[in-house]
Amino acid sequence: MDTMNRFDSTSPLDYRYYGDNPAFFARLQPYVSETAYINYILKVELALVRMLARHGLCPSTVPREVEAAIPEITPDEVYEEERRVHHNIRAIANCIRNRVSPESRPFVHLFATSADIMDTASALRYKELVRDVLLPDLIALEETLIELARTHSDDVQIGRTHGQHAVPTTFGYAIALYVSRIGSRIQAIDAAHRELCGQLSGAVGAFNSWSLFDPDDPAKYESELLHDLGLKPSATSVSSQIVEPESITDLTHSVVSCFSVLANLADDIRHLIRSEIAELIDTYSAEEVGSSTMPHKMNPKNFENVKSLWKEFMPRMMTVYMDQISEHQRDLTNSASGRFLPELFTGFCYAVLRMGGALSKIETNTAKMKEHIDANKHLVVAEPLYIMLALKGYPNAYDEVMNLSREGRRSSVNLMDLAWKHPEISKYLDKLSEEHKAILADPSLYVGDAPARTIATCDYWELECDRIKRLLTTEENYSYPKSISAFGD
Amino acid sequence: MDTMNRFDSTSPLDYRYYGDNPAFFARLQPYVSETAYINYILKVELALVRMLARHGLCPSTVPREVEAAIPEITPDEVYEEERRVHHNIRAIANCIRNRVSPESRPFVHLFATSADIMDTASALRYKELVRDVLLPDLIALEETLIELARTHSDDVQIGRTHGQHAVPTTFGYAIALYVSRIGSRIQAIDAAHRELCGQLSGAVGAFNSWSLFDPDDPAKYESELLHDLGLKPSATSVSSQIVEPESITDLTHSVVSCFSVLANLADDIRHLIRSEIAELIDTYSAEEVGSSTMPHKMNPKNFENVKSLWKEFMPRMMTVYMDQISEHQRDLTNSASGRFLPELFTGFCYAVLRMGGALSKIETNTAKMKEHIDANKHLVVAEPLYIMLALKGYPNAYDEVMNLSREGRRSSVNLMDLAWKHPEISKYLDKLSEEHKAILADPSLYVGDAPARTIATCDYWELECDRIKRLLTTEENYSYPKSISAFGD
Amino acid sequence: MDTMNRFDSTSPLDYRYYGDNPAFFARLQPYVSETAYINYILKVELALVRMLARHGLCPSTVPREVEAAIPEITPDEVYEEERRVHHNIRAIANCIRNRVSPESRPFVHLFATSADIMDTASALRYKELVRDVLLPDLIALEETLIELARTHSDDVQIGRTHGQHAVPTTFGYAIALYVSRIGSRIQAIDAAHRELCGQLSGAVGAFNSWSLFDPDDPAKYESELLHDLGLKPSATSVSSQIVEPESITDLTHSVVSCFSVLANLADDIRHLIRSEIAELIDTYSAEEVGSSTMPHKMNPKNFENVKSLWKEFMPRMMTVYMDQISEHQRDLTNSASGRFLPELFTGFCYAVLRMGGALSKIETNTAKMKEHIDANKHLVVAEPLYIMLALKGYPNAYDEVMNLSREGRRSSVNLMDLAWKHPEISKYLDKLSEEHKAILADPSLYVGDAPARTIATCDYWELECDRIKRLLTTEENYSYPKSISAFGD
Amino acid sequence: MDTMNRFDSTSPLDYRYYGDNPAFFARLQPYVSETAYINYILKVELALVRMLARHGLCPSTVPREVEAAIPEITPDEVYEEERRVHHNIRAIANCIRNRVSPESRPFVHLFATSADIMDTASALRYKELVRDVLLPDLIALEETLIELARTHSDDVQIGRTHGQHAVPTTFGYAIALYVSRIGSRIQAIDAAHRELCGQLSGAVGAFNSWSLFDPDDPAKYESELLHDLGLKPSATSVSSQIVEPESITDLTHSVVSCFSVLANLADDIRHLIRSEIAELIDTYSAEEVGSSTMPHKMNPKNFENVKSLWKEFMPRMMTVYMDQISEHQRDLTNSASGRFLPELFTGFCYAVLRMGGALSKIETNTAKMKEHIDANKHLVVAEPLYIMLALKGYPNAYDEVMNLSREGRRSSVNLMDLAWKHPEISKYLDKLSEEHKAILADPSLYVGDAPARTIATCDYWELECDRIKRLLTTEENYSYPKSISAFGD
Repeated sequence: MDTMNRFDSTSPLDYRYYGDNPAFFARLQPYVSETAYINYILKVELALVRMLARHGLCPSTVPREVEAAIPEITPDEVYEEERRVHHNIRAIANCIRNRVSPESRPFVHLFATSADIMDTASALRYKELVRDVLLPDLIALEETLIELARTHSDDVQIGRTHGQHAVPTTFGYAIALYVSRIGSRIQAIDAAHRELCGQLSGAVGAFNSWSLFDPDDPAKYESELLHDLGLKPSATSVSSQIVEPESITDLTHSVVSCFSVLANLADDIRHLIRSEIAELIDTYSAEEVGSSTMPHKMNPKNFENVKSLWKEFMPRMMTVYMDQISEHQRDLTNSASGRFLPELFTGFCYAVLRMGGALSKIETNTAKMKEHIDANKHLVVAEPLYIMLALKGYPNAYDEVMNLSREGRRSSVNLMDLAWKHPEISKYLDKLSEEHKAILADPSLYVGDAPARTIATCDYWELECDRIKRLLTTEENYSYPKSISAFGD
Repeated sequence: MDTMNRFDSTSPLDYRYYGDNPAFFARLQPYVSETAYINYILKVELALVRMLARHGLCPSTVPREVEAAIPEITPDEVYEEERRVHHNIRAIANCIRNRVSPESRPFVHLFATSADIMDTASALRYKELVRDVLLPDLIALEETLIELARTHSDDVQIGRTHGQHAVPTTFGYAIALYVSRIGSRIQAIDAAHRELCGQLSGAVGAFNSWSLFDPDDPAKYESELLHDLGLKPSATSVSSQIVEPESITDLTHSVVSCFSVLANLADDIRHLIRSEIAELIDTYSAEEVGSSTMPHKMNPKNFENVKSLWKEFMPRMMTVYMDQISEHQRDLTNSASGRFLPELFTGFCYAVLRMGGALSKIETNTAKMKEHIDANKHLVVAEPLYIMLALKGYPNAYDEVMNLSREGRRSSVNLMDLAWKHPEISKYLDKLSEEHKAILADPSLYVGDAPARTIATCDYWELECDRIKRLLTTEENYSYPKSISAFGD
Repeated sequence: MDTMNRFDSTSPLDYRYYGDNPAFFARLQPYVSETAYINYILKVELALVRMLARHGLCPSTVPREVEAAIPEITPDEVYEEERRVHHNIRAIANCIRNRVSPESRPFVHLFATSADIMDTASALRYKELVRDVLLPDLIALEETLIELARTHSDDVQIGRTHGQHAVPTTFGYAIALYVSRIGSRIQAIDAAHRELCGQLSGAVGAFNSWSLFDPDDPAKYESELLHDLGLKPSATSVSSQIVEPESITDLTHSVVSCFSVLANLADDIRHLIRSEIAELIDTYSAEEVGSSTMPHKMNPKNFENVKSLWKEFMPRMMTVYMDQISEHQRDLTNSASGRFLPELFTGFCYAVLRMGGALSKIETNTAKMKEHIDANKHLVVAEPLYIMLALKGYPNAYDEVMNLSREGRRSSVNLMDLAWKHPEISKYLDKLSEEHKAILADPSLYVGDAPARTIATCDYWELECDRIKRLLTTEENYSYPKSISAFGD
Repeated sequence: MDTMNRFDSTSPLDYRYYGDNPAFFARLQPYVSETAYINYILKVELALVRMLARHGLCPSTVPREVEAAIPEITPDEVYEEERRVHHNIRAIANCIRNRVSPESRPFVHLFATSADIMDTASALRYKELVRDVLLPDLIALEETLIELARTHSDDVQIGRTHGQHAVPTTFGYAIALYVSRIGSRIQAIDAAHRELCGQLSGAVGAFNSWSLFDPDDPAKYESELLHDLGLKPSATSVSSQIVEPESITDLTHSVVSCFSVLANLADDIRHLIRSEIAELIDTYSAEEVGSSTMPHKMNPKNFENVKSLWKEFMPRMMTVYMDQISEHQRDLTNSASGRFLPELFTGFCYAVLRMGGALSKIETNTAKMKEHIDANKHLVVAEPLYIMLALKGYPNAYDEVMNLSREGRRSSVNLMDLAWKHPEISKYLDKLSEEHKAILADPSLYVGDAPARTIATCDYWELECDRIKRLLTTEENYSYPKSISAFGD
């Protein structure tokens, strides 16, 4: 019952994106699989008995027995037991109990309500997923973008607004925008994952059971357990049966909003690959097929894939918002839906990976970039012309240049030729500096601060990424050794 | 590479809802798995060469060779080939080609673009999924509800609006509303699945390749292939590279809107199970655990599960709307997202199954129902009282009764006592018929047409379900024998 | 209190899209404003007393008094009264009562619960909005598209998949796809608006009050009232306090799914207007400004606007799905949200209008279309070449042509030149018909069935539009004269 | 053209929620109306010429002329001009220009692209809306909740999970959960509004025009302008034509996630008002009508309204995520949709106000609370019983108590009676402390840390609210005097 043909699964993550890529699978499985979830639950149950023993609430032998029991427990056994008792956490507790001495049994899961364990385990696995995979991979993508931006910081490209040629920028600067946007999302995700809350407050969150033996400070045990695990409680240890959902909501938002940035980048790049624009080229391996009927085709499918995954996962934020609502001390209508959340993170991590790989196969076509600048240089010059005239005090510069521009379009005469022939305007043109005249003659010089700003942006986010990477690797240690997490495969 | 531990998957469908239930899995796998999708693609490729052979466009031996090849092809092999050529349909075509004679090879997948095959295969699998599983199971749920409504057609229950006691109805009538709402959704899903479109119109939908040998009627081959498969083209065989997406959008809407009805039913029932209301009881087996810390708990978790699944899947309709948009003759941004659509149908089928099972464990607590009617009978009588007075011509009946009602609430005196003591009102009361006086004395008689309307509703939808079931089982046959669909397990 | 500076409103519909366009405002106000809603409620109240009088349930003078009262009632007065009684329908009933004789007063709104009136009024206003504005305008847009498709049925355009040049089609055929897709949506909207349900079944939908005087057939009055108004009840007159929401859900879906088609069309056109593609030109008036800083800019802002409106309104379908859920006999959590639904229809109608206007200003640039075909003709020829070779029995035609294609790309040699030089392939080429050779020499001939299919599509949908227009204008008449609907301005 | 009958608007905000409440309207209009938006745009245009003058880039007389011109400009005039030039920002610039001297004209809007002005104006208005209205009102609601929690910190209430009685808590603690959750959202909204970014970087965000006269540090002017307005640029002043959208996305998320908390609170309260639960009472004024047909009804419509508004506005977050995507240096598909964003903030502010008002009318029914505790005290005792037994070393305590519990349910015998009769269990019971025995005898004592934790939570958030209020009122001053913002009404 515990093995299945991968292609019999119904989720494309399982048969295609996550399940079909051994390296990606190996990286994500310790966090996003059901095996992983059970593993995290066991981690929390172990931390609980350790804490109990430390306070003399259970014999000091219990933790060792539980620790020894855990590696033997398989998800299959847990599910078998759940089929009997119809309760997932009771099933796990029973699997542990069946392996420890009769004396230890009563202390397994003692004081805890299921949600204490599950919500804490979820917070922990999301925190470690972000720390160990999601953020490192996203930072790696950011570094790829930084390198791309640096390499092309001076490559002049026509800026496009509304899909129409506007004024020049550089390709590096276009990428630097994404360095900045993804950078800010890295900060947001980093901040959000540090706020993830756990709990150990019992059936209705009022520490009822803990108060039985420590009426003065029953919340202390929650703080201690969570600290042992590298987590924290809500600001004043308040909760219902379940943790305040907002720390998960915020984390998911930070990821979804980053997903939108990836989708935007994907759109930008696939449009630059369009046949008519062709400023970027998506290189293909020799055996790759672009179309099953058109042998000449090469398609930007990686970028399309990222956009498509965004379409799939972005709307799931609505589920997360709906799951903020739980009646009274809790209803269970967030349970099944909450189980789908790891999919969103998996889909995001996959999109990051795919985007990184795709970017590494992109080549720029500077000839095309130049061609596009040249094609409309007689129009693109309109903005600097009007500003130079206005700066020199020419009245109504904008409207005059717009009229000349339209006249040029109609008569197919170069805007600058019309300007130089204009009796009034030409007088002002004469007064311009050589630098300004050069720009009017060759608007590809009109790139403003794009090169310098590209470099500044790359420098800034390189430092920031380094800072966050350092922070991640020095996060507080966990009481439970990492290696055990490989159980159950 | 093709087996995985089920618990290493990331989708809760795969490890828990679909993958963990052998009967459900066996029922759904032929439609919603990747194995199934490949199978349907192979069906379409076979139908294509059959049609080509019929028209003398390929040797008559080709279909037999392709038919013999198909059962040997495994998803694993297809994915292996895809890793080489980076194209899923070309990979499948190659898997066939590698098994047929050199003479037959050029005719495999000839004329077709990938989307011809994929979109047709998708339409076919969704059509058969609806016909063979989704609708039959939904009709079975409808029949369960019909029986429940009939059984309780006369069980008086207080009607509640805004969660406040209103006037009486019957529990059967409350269920009859769902008989009607789900009934209308069965009709909608049935209608939608008949409109699913396929295509065979080539790379940009203009039948370019078909025109090479039949310039006069190149669309004929599309109609024929689709007819062989039990499908149809768009109204005028127009398409881009891909089928007009609206037939899928409509089908998904019909399912999502039915999911909302299930969610509403689930909410209604779990609220009726609330401790204070307790008009319904969710029976439990002896070993079942309600809470890991509160041994006395029994929770309406099946109904919570249905609501939770709705939260997960309903927002995915947004993905379907976004996937209606594909640039020019098509972009690929609907590809990954489209792969997730079977999940929605799987989740829905699971919710139908779970709802059906949960309803069969529900018992009514008629004592509680009576208690609630009695508790507020002195208030509930307000509506019939005001209407009887108004019918007798008492001026301003509504406002007077509202005032009496509030006075009663304040003074804890029965509204009818106040009414009988009222000098003017009592005169009108005297004139009432015995039937009306009886209602005022015992408002549990004030159930209106609830019993009769319940029966009428059940009769109507029973007939309608029978009609649709007959229709489904006599749908046109397919050229490809059903039994082959078991390949690849 | 009843006038406001339009620019003080917060909804862009009110200050900009609907409120700023006198013709559009005049067309929509009778359906989508609060004035209109109150008007429809008054229509239903009048129809109710007419029906009561017909059955002798109220004096025959009542309808005339109510009819006389209605034109005097203003929304301002209704809101004033609502501020007093805190109930919108009671407020309207009071406004009527205050104007009729004491004898008539008790019969105003008698038997009805608020939801009877509101849900019926909503169904009626949506039905008439669709019949009188939404469908006629959408059909007008369809006719514009039909004309555009006919005009350009033969204008060869390169087909694009993944934004990459694929094989040729015609611009007319690209438009014909939208003729077909919008056509199918017209049918869907038309079908949905005919299914809109009203009710007259009382506080909990069980016809409690009606049973007081007609226990045998209390649902009869509902059917009769709805028939008078051109509506119908649910299949078996079942309801809770509120109408089964699915008929509204279906109508909204039909509109939202059509909105997605408009968004797709808008995307397609604005991409064809891109500077580098420029196959379409968005003509501008002389005074129009494209950019506040770039005097040369002309932007496809109408098409961007349609896409943007889709982004705003499409997600609101989620609200409609959530509003399908109402606890027990109803809760009120669909009340405020339901009030926003007319915005969605208003936004859609505006998008239809804007799209129609924008399309009329579009010009095609056939030179550019030709240029794009020519630019890649050496690649585009790959598909017909491989198919012709395969049809002649050339083994492995696809792979060979793919290899030649890549060689051509590398060496910048024409694919056909390479093919003719190829020792094997050239033999097969010699055998081709003159028509096929001509296509290989000039792939702009490779348009398949695009021209004929365009005409067939236009013919089909022209007839279908005519049929629906006839149907709409001959819909059943209403008991309440249309002209009164202008009250209250 | 600039006045309209309020009831002719189509947005329920305009005719009902925002437009119908004079105090709320007066409070919100300076931020959420079109008048307000134009006002903020004028503020930015003025700040721009001031900054230009400071740098000697325009005559020192220009700012004064512009400042004098602004109060005369009406939205109606702006729209009139826009109808002529088809460009909203050019229209505003023209309205200013028409009022200043010919010498000043060229300097109005000089260097700026429309998006510079609009995005900066939007950021500013959202920032001030949050600072001046949204946060103060939300903090007021928080203070209401704090008071409510304090008042009822000791009022014992049965905790409910899955709608089933669990173990006791206090009503104050149930409210304290919302104090904490809304508190964390206040922090999130406060943090987000401080991050709102503006820009002054020109047509493609590369400071092209600014580089014409200051090639070394063209970004300096952006920082300066934004500082004058109390805003800031992105981390490295990078942008495209438009500001990085993420600061708006984050702000909206913080508001939407708070809206979900309000919706949860609304649900909780309206369920506590249910007829059968009735632990809370929604008091009504004398004239208020609950139902148009049931004179006795009183409905929790304010809480339903809050939930309903959440349904309307929550899905709009999808629009915000979609609006993060803008092609290349920008497309305009976020323009119309972005105009609807103030509606979301308006709807939220209205919900906050309505919730605050509704909470002030709530009364608790402690008798009912006690009744519910008592009703199930024989079951509720199961948890403390099992834990006490386990603590004393009783083996398999959980399962034994579950069995006793079910036996008690079957035989209607009190769980504690069964426990005391049990030969083994009774021995352990004898050993319990008096405090523990008291709890078993009266489980209403089993409230854990609820009272203390309620107070701690209230104390914590009271301080935090004070801190944030102080911060808000001492935010940096703006160069433009507040009073001018009243223009245009």
